[in-house]
Amino acid sequence: MKKILVLNGPNLNLVGIREPGVYGKQSIDVINAGLREYAKELEVEIDIRQSNHEGMLIDWLHEAREEFDGVVLNAGAYTHYSYAIRDAIAAISKPIIEVHLSNVHARDEFRHKSVISPVCIGVICGFGKNSYSLALKALADLLK
Amino acid sequence: MKKILVLNGPNLNLVGIREPGVYGKQSIDVINAGLREYAKELEVEIDIRQSNHEGMLIDWLHEAREEFDGVVLNAGAYTHYSYAIRDAIAAISKPIIEVHLSNVHARDEFRHKSVISPVCIGVICGFGKNSYSLALKALADLLK
Amino acid sequence: MKKILVLNGPNLNLVGIREPGVYGKQSIDVINAGLREYAKELEVEIDIRQSNHEGMLIDWLHEAREEFDGVVLNAGAYTHYSYAIRDAIAAISKPIIEVHLSNVHARDEFRHKSVISPVCIGVICGFGKNSYSLALKALADLLK
Amino acid sequence: MKKILVLNGPNLNLVGIREPGVYGKQSIDVINAGLREYAKELEVEIDIRQSNHEGMLIDWLHEAREEFDGVVLNAGAYTHYSYAIRDAIAAISKPIIEVHLSNVHARDEFRHKSVISPVCIGVICGFGKNSYSLALKALADLLK
Amino acid sequence: MKKILVLNGPNLNLVGIREPGVYGKQSIDVINAGLREYAKELEVEIDIRQSNHEGMLIDWLHEAREEFDGVVLNAGAYTHYSYAIRDAIAAISKPIIEVHLSNVHARDEFRHKSVISPVCIGVICGFGKNSYSLALKALADLLK
Amino acid sequence: MKKILVLNGPNLNLVGIREPGVYGKQSIDVINAGLREYAKELEVEIDIRQSNHEGMLIDWLHEAREEFDGVVLNAGAYTHYSYAIRDAIAAISKPIIEVHLSNVHARDEFRHKSVISPVCIGVICGFGKNSYSLALKALADLLK
Amino acid sequence: MKKILVLNGPNLNLVGIREPGVYGKQSIDVINAGLREYAKELEVEIDIRQSNHEGMLIDWLHEAREEFDGVVLNAGAYTHYSYAIRDAIAAISKPIIEVHLSNVHARDEFRHKSVISPVCIGVICGFGKNSYSLALKALADLLK
Amino acid sequence: MKKILVLNGPNLNLVGIREPGVYGKQSIDVINAGLREYAKELEVEIDIRQSNHEGMLIDWLHEAREEFDGVVLNAGAYTHYSYAIRDAIAAISKPIIEVHLSNVHARDEFRHKSVISPVCIGVICGFGKNSYSLALKALADLLK
Amino acid sequence: MKKILVLNGPNLNLVGIREPGVYGKQSIDVINAGLREYAKELEVEIDIRQSNHEGMLIDWLHEAREEFDGVVLNAGAYTHYSYAIRDAIAAISKPIIEVHLSNVHARDEFRHKSVISPVCIGVICGFGKNSYSLALKALADLLK
Amino acid sequence: MKKILVLNGPNLNLVGIREPGVYGKQSIDVINAGLREYAKELEVEIDIRQSNHEGMLIDWLHEAREEFDGVVLNAGAYTHYSYAIRDAIAAISKPIIEVHLSNVHARDEFRHKSVISPVCIGVICGFGKNSYSLALKALADLLK
Amino acid sequence: MKKILVLNGPNLNLVGIREPGVYGKQSIDVINAGLREYAKELEVEIDIRQSNHEGMLIDWLHEAREEFDGVVLNAGAYTHYSYAIRDAIAAISKPIIEVHLSNVHARDEFRHKSVISPVCIGVICGFGKNSYSLALKALADLLK
Amino acid sequence: MKKILVLNGPNLNLVGIREPGVYGKQSIDVINAGLREYAKELEVEIDIRQSNHEGMLIDWLHEAREEFDGVVLNAGAYTHYSYAIRDAIAAISKPIIEVHLSNVHARDEFRHKSVISPVCIGVICGFGKNSYSLALKALADLLK
Repeated sequence: MKKILVLNGPNLNLVGIREPGVYGKQSIDVINAGLREYAKELEVEIDIRQSNHEGMLIDWLHEAREEFDGVVLNAGAYTHYSYAIRDAIAAISKPIIEVHLSNVHARDEFRHKSVISPVCIGVICGFGKNSYSLALKALADLLK
Repeated sequence: MKKILVLNGPNLNLVGIREPGVYGKQSIDVINAGLREYAKELEVEIDIRQSNHEGMLIDWLHEAREEFDGVVLNAGAYTHYSYAIRDAIAAISKPIIEVHLSNVHARDEFRHKSVISPVCIGVICGFGKNSYSLALKALADLLK
Repeated sequence: MKKILVLNGPNLNLVGIREPGVYGKQSIDVINAGLREYAKELEVEIDIRQSNHEGMLIDWLHEAREEFDGVVLNAGAYTHYSYAIRDAIAAISKPIIEVHLSNVHARDEFRHKSVISPVCIGVICGFGKNSYSLALKALADLLK
Repeated sequence: MKKILVLNGPNLNLVGIREPGVYGKQSIDVINAGLREYAKELEVEIDIRQSNHEGMLIDWLHEAREEFDGVVLNAGAYTHYSYAIRDAIAAISKPIIEVHLSNVHARDEFRHKSVISPVCIGVICGFGKNSYSLALKALADLLK
Repeated sequence: MKKILVLNGPNLNLVGIREPGVYGKQSIDVINAGLREYAKELEVEIDIRQSNHEGMLIDWLHEAREEFDGVVLNAGAYTHYSYAIRDAIAAISKPIIEVHLSNVHARDEFRHKSVISPVCIGVICGFGKNSYSLALKALADLLK
Repeated sequence: MKKILVLNGPNLNLVGIREPGVYGKQSIDVINAGLREYAKELEVEIDIRQSNHEGMLIDWLHEAREEFDGVVLNAGAYTHYSYAIRDAIAAISKPIIEVHLSNVHARDEFRHKSVISPVCIGVICGFGKNSYSLALKALADLLK
Repeated sequence: MKKILVLNGPNLNLVGIREPGVYGKQSIDVINAGLREYAKELEVEIDIRQSNHEGMLIDWLHEAREEFDGVVLNAGAYTHYSYAIRDAIAAISKPIIEVHLSNVHARDEFRHKSVISPVCIGVICGFGKNSYSLALKALADLLK
Repeated sequence: MKKILVLNGPNLNLVGIREPGVYGKQSIDVINAGLREYAKELEVEIDIRQSNHEGMLIDWLHEAREEFDGVVLNAGAYTHYSYAIRDAIAAISKPIIEVHLSNVHARDEFRHKSVISPVCIGVICGFGKNSYSLALKALADLLK
Repeated sequence: MKKILVLNGPNLNLVGIREPGVYGKQSIDVINAGLREYAKELEVEIDIRQSNHEGMLIDWLHEAREEFDGVVLNAGAYTHYSYAIRDAIAAISKPIIEVHLSNVHARDEFRHKSVISPVCIGVICGFGKNSYSLALKALADLLK
Repeated sequence: MKKILVLNGPNLNLVGIREPGVYGKQSIDVINAGLREYAKELEVEIDIRQSNHEGMLIDWLHEAREEFDGVVLNAGAYTHYSYAIRDAIAAISKPIIEVHLSNVHARDEFRHKSVISPVCIGVICGFGKNSYSLALKALADLLK
Repeated sequence: MKKILVLNGPNLNLVGIREPGVYGKQSIDVINAGLREYAKELEVEIDIRQSNHEGMLIDWLHEAREEFDGVVLNAGAYTHYSYAIRDAIAAISKPIIEVHLSNVHARDEFRHKSVISPVCIGVICGFGKNSYSLALKALADLLK
Repeated sequence: MKKILVLNGPNLNLVGIREPGVYGKQSIDVINAGLREYAKELEVEIDIRQSNHEGMLIDWLHEAREEFDGVVLNAGAYTHYSYAIRDAIAAISKPIIEVHLSNVHARDEFRHKSVISPVCIGVICGFGKNSYSLALKALADLLK
């Protein structure tokens, strides 16, 4: 069974509490529970983690090089400036999908640029928690 | 049953022939056939159209205002400069999902900017023909 | 009697339906009827046309070279990038007035730049349907 | 009867003398006389003033807050950089129309940007002295 | 006893009337009265002035060179482009504190740049009328 | 015998009438007649077409993929922003030469950038109607 | 009694040692001691922390959401690029004041831009250790 | 005898006091006295004026249209943004020479751009008070 | 018989050796020999020179003012920054055609800008050694 | 004996595995072993550390202030945006040399800018593992 | 007697012939003769040289370090990009005055920027051949 | 024995005299003598040359194609704009190392960009005369 790492970056622990108009009212735990259900349906194994630390996200991406078959990555605000995370993605030979809860292109100017998109397989954004499910499906399809 | 319009913009009639390294080797007809199959599975009705004419795409988006429940839109290169299509999207009150076969962010600089993203529900790119299937699923989920 | 062409570009067929907070609640037909009334008052003949196709607008501008004495042009979103329409304006020796329903300078950044203004006689924007009446008057005054 | 303030900014006292190819050969007094005539026809009361001092224009705009129903404003070159005048316009709750004698978009690059347009009702430019008449009519229509 | 000049620039005479959502509902007179009270508490002498004229603000800054020990300056919109005021600040050897009622960084793009900050001692913004009190305290502390 | 498509974009139907100081006084028909003569001399077959519609130019480029050996393309103002035409050029495996009547680099700033040059074989501009002859010769030499 | 978190970002542990011409000669411990004294005077409770780790600052801001009534934040160099800290500020519903020891606008160009200012209540900079005292006072006033 | 207006803009009244390292230690009165001497030598009549008010400088330039044969203008910081002064210069048909005491190109970035240079006859900067003498000589030579 | 100067700039002596994938495998001598043959066919006299020295190219352009009827100029990398060569072209009253072996628009960003194009008659690039032949023909046609 | 800290930033633990075409095939352990050998030869003591955490790198730089005589720093992708690391370098009074394995100027645009170079002693890049040896030698020479 | 080097850069040998509308109709020889006369009057010794070669101008500037007391430099188009000449000026400890015949600020955009101004004593432009005389006088005054 | 060309560009003949605070007090002859010593130690043959002429540097680089095994290049100010030197480097198949005496990144903005770095093997800057020694060592190591 394929193993997929779902990685959440800074402030995503506050989903449900933080700006509910933008990120929805469901807590990250409820979202994660739903995602675990969907993973079973897709017959993939998932491990969901969150950190506010850029370095920790890089450490986990490195771990994914040997322990996982692919990554669903919501790098939060690091998306827009962390060339270090970009290099980590390029450094490991695993398919990585960039996701966002909100449609980042309909928000602040600085959110329109992603420094990690060029080294990911693809991008899915704007579907709320469904962004994760779609990414999981996309990755599962890809890994078949 | 929900009705979805799948709209393909300029040069997408040449998929399979055009730069297969970027867009894949399957012809647009094969992709469309697969998509129609998947639509049945999702229990939505789809109508797939293609035009190289910006004005025609706008006419069809206007038609979608009354005839369809949502749109999956691959506006091709118009994505990067057609503010007229952007206005058409904003003018109709229907959910529209932007899709691309390739990961546009890993290609030419001018493809990094989409003038239509801010008025779409969300964006899916980089998964080849699967971009359409994922968008169809996202739209079907949304319309439920 | 002077003949004036009133040209409406993309999405202007949806006025009254489209974003009424921005464009007003009156349909384009009601606006046009009012404009025809005003033309009579000004003793000019008008022909009102609308198209979502950039090429069609150019064809009509070319037609105006021989068939009309002046043009009132709302090029919609093409205003912001259609150098082809700009060239069409420069190519015919007729006075052309640029109009907009809304005050484009109070909206999105991309609407602040008009590529056609430099080759028009003048610009009138922000007065809703009255923008057309004022332009008609300006053109009628000019043609006297 | 509605009271309208017509405000002319720097160097507009020299109209008729200054660059006649751009601004026309009629003196500002002749233009003003014609405008007063037209005001009578429109049944509005107008007060026309001119100053080269940015601060004076702001003082007069403040005065308009209580003494006038609307303003026709040709801010001259201050149009392009006076954020102080912009704030004055935003600070008073009266409709203000921006006018220019020449088509500023067909002239120097720096004249293409107006810092006051976003807080005015609308803009009219390029019709010589008729720009004022059209603005007066627009304002009279608006105040009805 | 130290003498401090409190200088208010364009449109600040309208505080309380002008955009109360941004600048608060208290009139400038009430704010000034409160500030005079606080000055007594801090045991400094203050003189509060307001002008919409850039040149007048410069004249007063020059006066401060000999007549005051420091200046609390809210240059209003001149903050963003008056290099002449900047030079006046640099020309006199007195500590000057830049203040703003609102958090200018949370408003229009053009308000994010201050041409006078580099030559002031420091900046305080976003605390409504309290911005003045804090600046007065900062200056009083500095002059001890 | 090699078959070459000569494609003229927007407003080129007005050559001879339009800005004769820039584009010359000979009508497009006279230019085309001369070009047909030269084609005979070069022993190539040519088909000359003109359209103001971006979509039509794309349709014809697609047709060229199977029906012609090369294209001489004067895309008019579309040269400067039509990424859709650029993609059409890249999508077909035929040599395409970009031509312009005038020296675009000696004109407006916006004409200095061509979005199609990078995907054409080469560029020839500034020689009036001779630009077409030189391009035809270049293409004929290339196809030998 | 109100609880306030005083948060110091990268390199602020070296104050007193680091570039004394810019940051003053007093060590951070002396500054903190003075601030604790002033807190007593203002009758607020303060907790002062410092970290060089962006992630840690975010963790602490999250903690502030439930444990504190407001935050005085000197984010050091993260001020200029940490959109992750910006999001953390926006995610918690507590008033936050941005402070700097030096007048950042009188230093390097890159220090002129703060990505966190737009989501803070206000900004105080340039008063050395007094910046903290003024911010504490501002926050205490605000929390009353 | 030719009449020349010498116009000094904002803060130039403080020369000798203001930043002596940049502007020299001689007071403006001493400089003016020397200049009057030199004018006698050149056999021209001069009138020297100074104002911190942009509008006053414009009024005086207008006066020069009828009362003077040429102007030596040190517009101070207005040099860098006063398009209103630029328009005043262009509006009057008299030769105007731009001068600066310091070499503005060796100072702050914002001083490198002059909005008035393009409408002046020429520019002289960097020679301290001698800049005025050289300009006077240049103007006297020109008026012969 | 018309005399044409063919001028090659820096590094063009290495054609055939230098990056053969870009510039072709034929040596400059072989190219020149072919060009001399073609000149005979066109009945023009040519003189071919090469220098790596910007100043020498200017000297030769000056010489062309009196000794030649036109110039075919491949300025190599000087094309992109030598305003001195641009001025030399503008200073002599002879037709000059800019040529490049490669399609400069399909290469590095810095090669997209030519500072000499605006003062040349026209530009031909992308046809390898044939660029020279086409330019020679264009010039011969022009000089007839 | 002089003590030198060799600091490796994010993703450098993967050297040898990560993009071997760019970074070489030797593992970081082999590189470090070679460097330790060379240190003995140069008679300096070295301590080599690596972290993906920006904050940790700052902590170690602070430690270097008291424990080391100089630093060889490869900050990886943090080089391009970590103003916090820049401040750490400026805050400690020790010579620091910036190194890179690859020639960053021959890679992505974003790698061309280093925010730390201005505060380092010098930069060495492009020599693979030899970059470290050269930096060690440079530092050893400097510390003599 | 003071020795002054007058240095003319590229294309200045063609003055009188080259664009007389811009540079005047007098030949460089006539200008130089007049300048030699004026030098006598000023009691300075001058040596006038011209070269189209950037390197030669640098060589001569180096020579001026030991052989001359000051330099009047018209670097022609090199003014706008020759950082090598800028470095040469900074490298020698002699006063250098930048001159231009025309008012460069009233011409092409690229002529508005001088890379050498920041290291010269001052700038004089726009007075035709008189620019040289004024510079000579300025230098003579300075060397007294 | 390997042969290495050491090439010094404009103004480097003045090292020791020119801005000693930046470039050191040792003359270029002393530096060269030291470098020749070190070359013996490294067992490579070196030839050191200097020119202020861009064209001469290109000629020598061409010579290096056949006569040397590698080049140590300090292109002085040409580093920042000479695309012609860049092309010369790319045209010859020899390893070239870019060196600078000073840390160019800690100086003027224009010195931060090198147009030659992308085509060199690597860069060494900031170590004074030791930059040359390190480059020589790097090249010697590379050529082994």
